[in-house]
This record gives sequence, structure tokens and C-alpha cells, in this order.
Amino acid sequence: MAKKTRYTVVGAGHGGRAMAAHLALMGFPVNLYNRTAQHVAAIKTRGGIELKSYEGGPHGFAELAMVTSDMEEALREAQVIMVVVPSSAHADIARKAAPYLHDGQIVLLNPGRTGGAMEFTKVLSDQGCEADATVAEAETFIYASRSEGPAESRIFRMKDAVPLAALPAHRTDVVLEALKSAYPQFINGVNVLHTGLNNMGAVFHPALTLLNAARIESTKGEFQFYIDGVTPSVGLVLEVLDRERVTVAAALGIRARTALEWLRMAYDATGANLAEAILNQPGYRGIMAPRTLRHRYLFEDVPMSLVPIVAFAQRYGVSVRGMESVVRLACFVHRTDYWRRGRSLGKLGIERWSVSELTAYVNEGVVPSGTTWSPIWMAS
Amino acid sequence: MAKKTRYTVVGAGHGGRAMAAHLALMGFPVNLYNRTAQHVAAIKTRGGIELKSYEGGPHGFAELAMVTSDMEEALREAQVIMVVVPSSAHADIARKAAPYLHDGQIVLLNPGRTGGAMEFTKVLSDQGCEADATVAEAETFIYASRSEGPAESRIFRMKDAVPLAALPAHRTDVVLEALKSAYPQFINGVNVLHTGLNNMGAVFHPALTLLNAARIESTKGEFQFYIDGVTPSVGLVLEVLDRERVTVAAALGIRARTALEWLRMAYDATGANLAEAILNQPGYRGIMAPRTLRHRYLFEDVPMSLVPIVAFAQRYGVSVRGMESVVRLACFVHRTDYWRRGRSLGKLGIERWSVSELTAYVNEGVVPSGTTWSPIWMAS
Repeated sequence: MAKKTRYTVVGAGHGGRAMAAHLALMGFPVNLYNRTAQHVAAIKTRGGIELKSYEGGPHGFAELAMVTSDMEEALREAQVIMVVVPSSAHADIARKAAPYLHDGQIVLLNPGRTGGAMEFTKVLSDQGCEADATVAEAETFIYASRSEGPAESRIFRMKDAVPLAALPAHRTDVVLEALKSAYPQFINGVNVLHTGLNNMGAVFHPALTLLNAARIESTKGEFQFYIDGVTPSVGLVLEVLDRERVTVAAALGIRARTALEWLRMAYDATGANLAEAILNQPGYRGIMAPRTLRHRYLFEDVPMSLVPIVAFAQRYGVSVRGMESVVRLACFVHRTDYWRRGRSLGKLGIERWSVSELTAYVNEGVVPSGTTWSPIWMAS
Repeated sequence: MAKKTRYTVVGAGHGGRAMAAHLALMGFPVNLYNRTAQHVAAIKTRGGIELKSYEGGPHGFAELAMVTSDMEEALREAQVIMVVVPSSAHADIARKAAPYLHDGQIVLLNPGRTGGAMEFTKVLSDQGCEADATVAEAETFIYASRSEGPAESRIFRMKDAVPLAALPAHRTDVVLEALKSAYPQFINGVNVLHTGLNNMGAVFHPALTLLNAARIESTKGEFQFYIDGVTPSVGLVLEVLDRERVTVAAALGIRARTALEWLRMAYDATGANLAEAILNQPGYRGIMAPRTLRHRYLFEDVPMSLVPIVAFAQRYGVSVRGMESVVRLACFVHRTDYWRRGRSLGKLGIERWSVSELTAYVNEGVVPSGTTWSPIWMAS
């Protein structure tokens, strides 16, 4: 039998724990990295994670090869690096990993939100990384999971099909091949513009949070986020944002799925309009609202999902006034300049490129002549 | 004793009924006009309105001189015409009244929201009205009232001081003089830019409705609009909108009151920030949210308050991205183009004027040379 793929999971929140434990229970050697050693002290002491699961799902004590807060040590032996942190931390992980990556390694962002692989690549390049590593991003996170203690995790569901794309896209098959012994669920997501623009969280999370802002704060989230929070008028706003997202994709030559299509495809949930289809998705039952507005639905999805989509829109001539309105309100609520903090085209390294130049970059990895930076695959 | 001022109250909603009944109980002859005869049939049959009130307030059966849906008849003998309709109906009332107004009559919009007197004047002028009538606007409505039956009304509170301004402002004293036997509470509001830009509803109503949108729809408004609806983060958004409003006023050379100053002045309510001050205003206790999003807080305050303030901002170079965001979300929620439906500078007759030209207009009634329309006082 072939040697088992060696994984490093970066990030030990509920998602990273679930993934590390599941991979280990499948028999793969797994390193778990977390920036703050204290957060993984209990896992290090026990030597692994107790995984619980749905009926018939993976469960048991998952022994880990290494638990560390030293990035060099974490990456040394890894073949596949699964990044499972909020996308607002992707740039920081790239900076930390840049000196230690080496040829042939695969980095998968779980998920990338919008522009994740492009930002990660740009930061690696800016840091002088010369490793011929492959950066890829998943469209969504494969698990629905929760932490139930310092060294425990529980998986509620696993998705059947998760698109992913490498940057550049001609490397996607290599990534799928490396992952398939663990995750046959990953499928080819075309390229990172597709995965980034099929980001449904960009449409759902910030608007739904803001249009329920007072209720979240005054009830501490004691209501069902989708079932109570998506009323007919809120649905109208989500539909406008969704149309804007699909239009931005069209301006980039991409046929993105509408939220209605996605709900039908992923959950077989249908309805006369978006609000109805959401109410008809049984998986949304029981999902409670955030307990506070200091939640990743705003502080992650606004800068890492909406801001880059708005940046594409402004560059390629699409009006996205709904999205702009949502970003602005989020800036007020958090007293934060998400336009500056978020993924601008400059941070993605693609400022002033034409659509065909951008397409050539995500598919072939070539950059326009005159570009002042070189992606890692050109440096190596 | 001097002959009693003859009033016509236009509009028989809860506010118009309260005002007509109170004026009649004070001994003034009062005509009550309503566009739809059916809505005032019970009042016409009884010959008046049964008024209830707070302890010590006006109450009793108020006999009216006339109840009509014929504008000509309603205005024939009137000296003061109190317009008590949603501001979105001001233009329609002006069109209907234009043929029947005559010299010396006073029209007071209760209240004007933003740009009410300017819009009313422009419509009268466009209709060829040549009467030397005076149009004025109040900053807020003097009563808090409710209808309790087809020929009843109840007054909860009356404000102590309500600024009003005539257009042009040198006529304000004439209006105050005509009203003072009935309403000593009216005070000089400087000019219609002051009354229009001290419009607190523009700041409070649409944003508070939208940031509580889902809760309003899913609970049918079963929560306290201000007490539960103004959470700390919602307060931050209101503060941004309020700063924008005060900045627009400053660009017009006007020192508008901040919402915090207004809460302290009007209600002696204070707090470290706007959310706290609102929670400290006992008058907000018990005020429930709208039962649906089809409410004047959106369909009136967006086009008649926010849109004209944004129009001033855009003309005079102030950034009001918060207000723009609120208007856009309201457009989505109601699937209505409030930019077009609302009070543009063109509808106010002041397009492309400089600040000094606008100031001369509201204070002195003079229009810049080359203006293609003539206000009624120049026609007569």
C-alpha cells in the first residue's frame, strides 16, 4: 500500500479539530498547528482529540502525530496543509508559512471565501517564498461541527460535494488526486474565480445579520437565524445582493449559481422566491442567530467576501449598490474601515488587470507583462 | 373681541381629527376636508368629533362647521389651512388646492418633513396659482394622537414648543401671529432649511425600521420600537446618519441640532451616546414597532426626508453614504425607486442653485436670474 499522505491542519477551532480528528481516525498522520499554544494545551496533553459524530459518522479518540504552535515544525513533513482558520487570518498564516513551505506541498484554504488563494499566493510571493507549492481553495467548509470541550469535537454533517480550485487551475487535478484518499467529496471547481464568486455566505451572512441587528443584540441571538430572520422583505434584499453577485461573475465571464439554484442543488430546497426556499431548507431549522454582532458573519464575511466582490464590480463596471450599502452599515456598526481591511484587488495582486489577463492568471498562472510582482511558481 | 380665525384642516387621519376637534373645542370655526368622502362619513353624520385626551387636556364633542371632500368648498372661507397628511401627499394637496387658494390665506404643513414648503410652493406655481398665499411648515407635528373610532380621536400629548417657518422666512411672523390665539406653542424656526434639516425622523425612522426589519415582519411589530429596537450597534448607525445630517446643514450654513441635543432639549433625556439617551427618554416606553414594513417610517420618511437631504448633500459636496445606504435598502424592501419618487432638488425648484442663492430664496423669496419658474408671490 502507498505511503499515507501526511497532513498538517492549521487552526484548532471547531473546524480544525474536526478535520484533524477525522483525518487521524482515517489513518493519516496528522500535525495540528495553532498560533496560541494555550488553546491546544489540552489536546497536546491527551495526545489527540475525542471525536463525536452523527449516527454512523466518524468517532473515537483520534491520536495526532504532533500538536504544535511552531510553524516550521508543523510544516516540515507535511504533504497537504489544510488551513482551517477564519479567512481574515489567511494573510497572517501565509506570512508565517512562507519561510517554511517547500516544493510539492499543497495548501488548501477551507474555505477561501472570495479571493483567498489569490491573497495567499500574493503574500507568499511578497515574502520571497520560492517554494513550488500549490495553493488551492475550497468553496465551502466540508464539515458542520462544534467544539464540546478543550480536546473534543463533534461533527454534525459532512457535505457530499465540495468544489475546490487551485491557483492556477491547471494544478487542480493534482490537488484532487492528493486529497482523494481522504476526501472523495472534493470536486473540480473550475478556477478560483468560480469558487470565490459562488460564495453564498457573502450574500447571506452580513445582510441577514444587519437586518436582524437590533434583535441579535437585544435577545443575544435567541431566535432562529434563518427561519425567523429571513422574512419576505429580508428575502428581497438577499435577492438583490444575489443578483449583484451573479452579475459580477457574469462580468468576469463566469456563470455563477444563483442562491436559489444552490439551495435546490445542495439541499433540494425550493420556493417561489429566496425567502421561501430558505424556509424550506430543513437544515436551517434550529440554527440560532449569532449571540452578538461581534461575529464572523460581519468581521469575516464583510472584508473577505463582500469587499473583494465589490472590488471586482467597481473594476469591471458592475453596479453593486446593495453590497456597498451592506459594507457601509457594517463599517458603522463595528466602527471599522472594512474597505481598507478587506481584500482589495491590490492585495490580490491583480489591480488594473483586464478580464482576459485575470482569466489567464487564474487558469494558466501567467501574469500580464509589466506586473511588478512574481507569483511563487515563477520564482521557483 | 376680534373675529375668530377660520380654519380648514386638510386630512382626517388621526392627526387631522385631533387638530380639527381641538380647534373647534377652542371655539374656532373649523372645516374638515378629506379626499375620500367615505372616510369622514361618520364625522359628517354626527356633525363633529368626540375628543378624548390626557388628564386636564381638551376633551368633549367638537362640532365642526363643515365636513367635505370638495376642496373648493373647504378652502372658500378659510384663513388658515392646516395640512395634516403624510408628506408624500403634499404635492397632491397642492395640485388640488392651487385653483382655489386666494390672497392672504396661510397654508401650514404639519409637519413639512424636509423641503415640504418648497415642494408645495413649486407645485402651486407650476399649476399657475397666482394667489398671494403664504406657505409654511412646522418642524414636527404638535400632537401625539390616535383614532379610536370613525368619529373619535384621542390626544396623548401636546408639544410645548414647535418651530415653524414660512417660505420666504420674512413671512414667518405673520403666520405666528395668525396662529397664536390657537397655538402659542409655535415658535420661529428661522427658515425652511432649518425646519427641514432638523428633521429627526429622517435619522431615526428608516434606519431603525430596516435594522429591525426581520423582527418587525416575524413578530408583526410586537416589541418596543425604541426601547428594544435601539441597541448599541443600531445607535452607532443612527449616530453616523445624524452626523451626516448635521454636516449637510453645515454645508448650507446652518447649525442644526444633533439628535443628542434634541433629546436633551425636548425631553431632558441624556446619555453617553445616542442609544443611551434614547433609552433614557421615558416617552419612548410603550411605543410599539410598526406592524409591517409597509409603514410611513419607510414610504414617507425615505422619499420625503432622506432623499431631499441626500440631494442637498450631493449638490453641495457632502458625503452621506450612510443615508444613501439606508435609501437603497428601502428601495429593495419596497421594490420602489424612492430616488425618483422622492423630493429631488428639481421638484423643490432649486436645482443648480448656489448656497447663497438658496439662502436668498428661503429668507427673502428671491430667485436667481434665469430661473425658469416664478414662485407664487412673484406671480401675484
